[in-house]
Amino acid sequence: MLIVMKADATDAQVAEVVRVIEELGYRAHPLPGATRTAIGITGNQGAVDVSRFENLAGVAEAIRVSKPYKLITLDLRPEKTVVRVGDASIGGDELAIIAGPCAVESRAQAFSVAEAVRRSGARFFRGGAFKPRTSPYAFQGLGEEGLKILAEVREVYGLKIVTEALDEAGVDMVERYGDVIQIGARNMQNFSLLKRAGRSPLPVLLKRGLSATLDEWLLAAEYVMSEGNYNVVLCERGIRTFAQHTRNTLDLAAIPAVRRISHLPVIVDPSHGTGKNYMVNPLARAGVAVGADGLIIEVHDQPERALSDGAQALTIEQYEQLVNEVRAIHEVIAPTPVG
Amino acid sequence: MLIVMKADATDAQVAEVVRVIEELGYRAHPLPGATRTAIGITGNQGAVDVSRFENLAGVAEAIRVSKPYKLITLDLRPEKTVVRVGDASIGGDELAIIAGPCAVESRAQAFSVAEAVRRSGARFFRGGAFKPRTSPYAFQGLGEEGLKILAEVREVYGLKIVTEALDEAGVDMVERYGDVIQIGARNMQNFSLLKRAGRSPLPVLLKRGLSATLDEWLLAAEYVMSEGNYNVVLCERGIRTFAQHTRNTLDLAAIPAVRRISHLPVIVDPSHGTGKNYMVNPLARAGVAVGADGLIIEVHDQPERALSDGAQALTIEQYEQLVNEVRAIHEVIAPTPVG
Amino acid sequence: MLIVMKADATDAQVAEVVRVIEELGYRAHPLPGATRTAIGITGNQGAVDVSRFENLAGVAEAIRVSKPYKLITLDLRPEKTVVRVGDASIGGDELAIIAGPCAVESRAQAFSVAEAVRRSGARFFRGGAFKPRTSPYAFQGLGEEGLKILAEVREVYGLKIVTEALDEAGVDMVERYGDVIQIGARNMQNFSLLKRAGRSPLPVLLKRGLSATLDEWLLAAEYVMSEGNYNVVLCERGIRTFAQHTRNTLDLAAIPAVRRISHLPVIVDPSHGTGKNYMVNPLARAGVAVGADGLIIEVHDQPERALSDGAQALTIEQYEQLVNEVRAIHEVIAPTPVG
Amino acid sequence: MLIVMKADATDAQVAEVVRVIEELGYRAHPLPGATRTAIGITGNQGAVDVSRFENLAGVAEAIRVSKPYKLITLDLRPEKTVVRVGDASIGGDELAIIAGPCAVESRAQAFSVAEAVRRSGARFFRGGAFKPRTSPYAFQGLGEEGLKILAEVREVYGLKIVTEALDEAGVDMVERYGDVIQIGARNMQNFSLLKRAGRSPLPVLLKRGLSATLDEWLLAAEYVMSEGNYNVVLCERGIRTFAQHTRNTLDLAAIPAVRRISHLPVIVDPSHGTGKNYMVNPLARAGVAVGADGLIIEVHDQPERALSDGAQALTIEQYEQLVNEVRAIHEVIAPTPVG
Repeated sequence: MLIVMKADATDAQVAEVVRVIEELGYRAHPLPGATRTAIGITGNQGAVDVSRFENLAGVAEAIRVSKPYKLITLDLRPEKTVVRVGDASIGGDELAIIAGPCAVESRAQAFSVAEAVRRSGARFFRGGAFKPRTSPYAFQGLGEEGLKILAEVREVYGLKIVTEALDEAGVDMVERYGDVIQIGARNMQNFSLLKRAGRSPLPVLLKRGLSATLDEWLLAAEYVMSEGNYNVVLCERGIRTFAQHTRNTLDLAAIPAVRRISHLPVIVDPSHGTGKNYMVNPLARAGVAVGADGLIIEVHDQPERALSDGAQALTIEQYEQLVNEVRAIHEVIAPTPVG
Repeated sequence: MLIVMKADATDAQVAEVVRVIEELGYRAHPLPGATRTAIGITGNQGAVDVSRFENLAGVAEAIRVSKPYKLITLDLRPEKTVVRVGDASIGGDELAIIAGPCAVESRAQAFSVAEAVRRSGARFFRGGAFKPRTSPYAFQGLGEEGLKILAEVREVYGLKIVTEALDEAGVDMVERYGDVIQIGARNMQNFSLLKRAGRSPLPVLLKRGLSATLDEWLLAAEYVMSEGNYNVVLCERGIRTFAQHTRNTLDLAAIPAVRRISHLPVIVDPSHGTGKNYMVNPLARAGVAVGADGLIIEVHDQPERALSDGAQALTIEQYEQLVNEVRAIHEVIAPTPVG
Repeated sequence: MLIVMKADATDAQVAEVVRVIEELGYRAHPLPGATRTAIGITGNQGAVDVSRFENLAGVAEAIRVSKPYKLITLDLRPEKTVVRVGDASIGGDELAIIAGPCAVESRAQAFSVAEAVRRSGARFFRGGAFKPRTSPYAFQGLGEEGLKILAEVREVYGLKIVTEALDEAGVDMVERYGDVIQIGARNMQNFSLLKRAGRSPLPVLLKRGLSATLDEWLLAAEYVMSEGNYNVVLCERGIRTFAQHTRNTLDLAAIPAVRRISHLPVIVDPSHGTGKNYMVNPLARAGVAVGADGLIIEVHDQPERALSDGAQALTIEQYEQLVNEVRAIHEVIAPTPVG
Repeated sequence: MLIVMKADATDAQVAEVVRVIEELGYRAHPLPGATRTAIGITGNQGAVDVSRFENLAGVAEAIRVSKPYKLITLDLRPEKTVVRVGDASIGGDELAIIAGPCAVESRAQAFSVAEAVRRSGARFFRGGAFKPRTSPYAFQGLGEEGLKILAEVREVYGLKIVTEALDEAGVDMVERYGDVIQIGARNMQNFSLLKRAGRSPLPVLLKRGLSATLDEWLLAAEYVMSEGNYNVVLCERGIRTFAQHTRNTLDLAAIPAVRRISHLPVIVDPSHGTGKNYMVNPLARAGVAVGADGLIIEVHDQPERALSDGAQALTIEQYEQLVNEVRAIHEVIAPTPVG
């Protein structure tokens, strides 16, 4: 259920509604908007009695929600969410660019790429310290040592660090060294991890699972939000289909589909989404043209020596060309209206 | 096998190579390029003896082809094919826009839409007279009457007519009234139809099948070309996946994938590719940004009354906005280099 | 709409209902059942007036059908259809086995395999004369010569001939030489071909398309039936998925799904359904266990020399083992009740 | 790398090889077989020097392994693994049947179903205490209270308990109350969980992920085994495809595909694999006919009141019929030979 407050409702009236919700044993999620505050109710197994709220002071209406999600919806929050990470943001007017190597391999490699990322004007640096690898015998990442290198990158280059957590202990670590918790495609329905991320002060970058429907993806975001963390960025990174000319099939229609339902920002990963170096640039352009809020791109100073995913990493030169091209497209497209 | 002629080979030398190929019982496909002519050999069940050709005058080299396709490849023809339809073309510098209703329903409907298509500067009009419908009880098109209306549109508005043939008899009809033979997704492996289209003087617009791999799609084009018709335009229109937020999943990575292998132009159909009105515009932008040579778009003067596919048809106003947006993107992207 | 006649309705009453349907410009499809006759009405674009029929003599009820199919349904015909081919049948108590090579390659090959097929007790021989090949350069079948060999097999071994038609001209040929018209997966939505087969006196074996939903498959059968040919056998032959350990993914759940909706018999093709020799036997067992009415199996006297699909063809010895195993399973499973 | 010992190698010789492997910083996995012992080496990033081992006493040969998996392979262990759970087992001659409710809802419900499961002769009881639900607002299981009920079922009915762990803490709990750790489809690539299960003394039932290739699934098993736990049972439970007549598409060809590569037992879950009550019985029959080592089946005393997955749960009566039918099939199929 959603409680929509009147435009002139006072803070005290909002607080009183929250108190009643909690008194009933439910959880209240007040989300202030530009013109009004809406309050989501979660934690109820069955229906909540509408009449209990409609007569409280400051309440405009109480809306039953039949869809399986509540907090991610435009019903709850009609304005797009802008996720702020220090002085940078995702979901605002500026195109967010997150770039860096698949895995942090060494201080030299990380610094070399970070130098180029900063020069391009991007605000976010990506790099994995814990790598979820299909084979137990493949390079699994540098672990905490990798996180320390990322923390140095942050300090030296002023870039925000986006890095993946594979489990609850990993979230603790990312909180110590990073700025944004990435949850990977294979963990999109690792509900214990989602709940832990939902109790973190850091924003969450939630990749779509390889075979996730739109509803499953949005409900995974709902898991994070239902624990109180409303700073979720969705990321389309390709789905598994019969097609074999790419590693995954990038489903760009997911961007307008998310927009129609949710206030959350959504970005595109053309690196994993294609798995092929020569496709990253065209699909990055397409991702921006379709209306994404940003891109996450794999860049390596020596892709042919990369310990993971080298086939899809851009050289620094290719990355710079990409940034120029997507910025040009971002300028000509009109801001996509919500809904 | 491919026979690549020297840059200074004479017409007589080319003719002699063709004569030898045919004497051996094979079929010769000379394709003149900007700097050299290449001659494809088809019709051989097993290997062709290379030495038979290497000593003929004017021959630069004879190349064995291990891939299942020959005529569609950049090996055969390194320059992109520009398919010319009268004074219009697909595959050149200009973005080709093909627009019109899913099905021709009446003279008034066709003229009303054609008026808007011409006004937008597009050069091609689409409209089905024979509709392949999943149910035998759904509207099957106006048949020859619909083709006559299309011929009138051509005369009155100067637009080139793109229309579908469902069988060999249908190709006869399209040859009488239209300019480009469309082969639909469901018929992509209707080999009798492909061969008949391969003997037509008209260009062929070949849609990708719902579950066609890249190789199967290119080999369907090869079927058309192996009969002598080299004017083939490929069209990505979405593939069937588990995703349910769209009617099909538009696979835009297919555009750079085709580019890397083939000289044939390739366009995008965001109408069937999404099946939803509100997604057509963003995915059309993405299609142009990814590097497609053109778009095919469903437009209806009264989408809510359309006899087929109304849910995805644009209004005339939406169509005009689309044309403006995609032209702006087309201007800013650098021409995608072949390969 | 369906008109259900009373159990004691006379032939004259049925004829009168048919006359009224045709007078209204629709098409009547009387299907006699064990206890009553039902009459399907097709050819109507919109709703048919129920009251026009309810007062005719012998009519029990007139049922509006909201599903897109009519003639294939258990509503129309609650008893399972038994397709009779001379003294053999598909859909009755006996398990139907259709076996033979992918393509007829020579008289010697066909006779060698047919000898084994007859010895096994199977009643049907399969073999392609026209092969739909992905590449235009692959072996395309012996054509009419192949059909003549099949006609000889019929005469010498008393087997019924199941063979594929690729186009309308092919149906003419199969009518001349064969017993059952096979329509392949790639042509499942070749509506011109379906309609032509619907006007044939021969039964139709309709393979499911590579990416066909259940509804699309049943509607393809409806196309055949809507032209008056009610002898349709459905064939599950695997769908296209991301999985790569098989050529296609055999969807055995389709068998009970068809049973629940339709009276048509349904068989399984474990040869194309897996594409691997070592999987054919286990999946044939599974197909019979799930309740299929029969199997269609590729057998070759020398699989390693087959001109097409050799990787999945059984040797004669493997085929004989398969027949023994599936017969044993067929005996122990209780007849699957309809619905 | 695999070290294959001679048939007459002594325990001391095996121990010496293990010592050398560990001295090199790798991990040794000795797997005794019927006639010889093989020792897998893991933990090496690059190639291991073969010559280091070939001259050790008792060594027959050292085999380089190019496939990404080692421990799961028939190369390592040519005899099928029989997973023993007390006096019951999976992978031996007897068909293993695991039955019970989707979720433990109450002591009364669990006991009522367990009574029927024991009566049917099955040896394993399934029931979830922690439910991975797509929505955060759906019933999430009874938690530890549910596990206590399961422990009572074990004591009262002598059934082995199979129950799911969602995270590392969950494994601790299952170790306390259960017999087999189930890892669900959504967690198949939760590598932290796999590693934890790999350090457990309990056997692991590893469900295939919704979009997992065969290699990914086998590598997930390899993760468990690489930590030292060799008692892994694979479970096919349906994959995600475009098909909509079932919840998932049960891929029965995976059974012979696993058999050809791996010594691990593999069972079938026709309940999740179809999602529809009326399909469970036919697909269970097919699963046994294809050669699976067992079945896992959802049974509920009152399916219409189930808190999760009620649509697919069998009634006790339906379950009893299923057991009779699959046992009859199991008797008639010859033991499937390995490889």
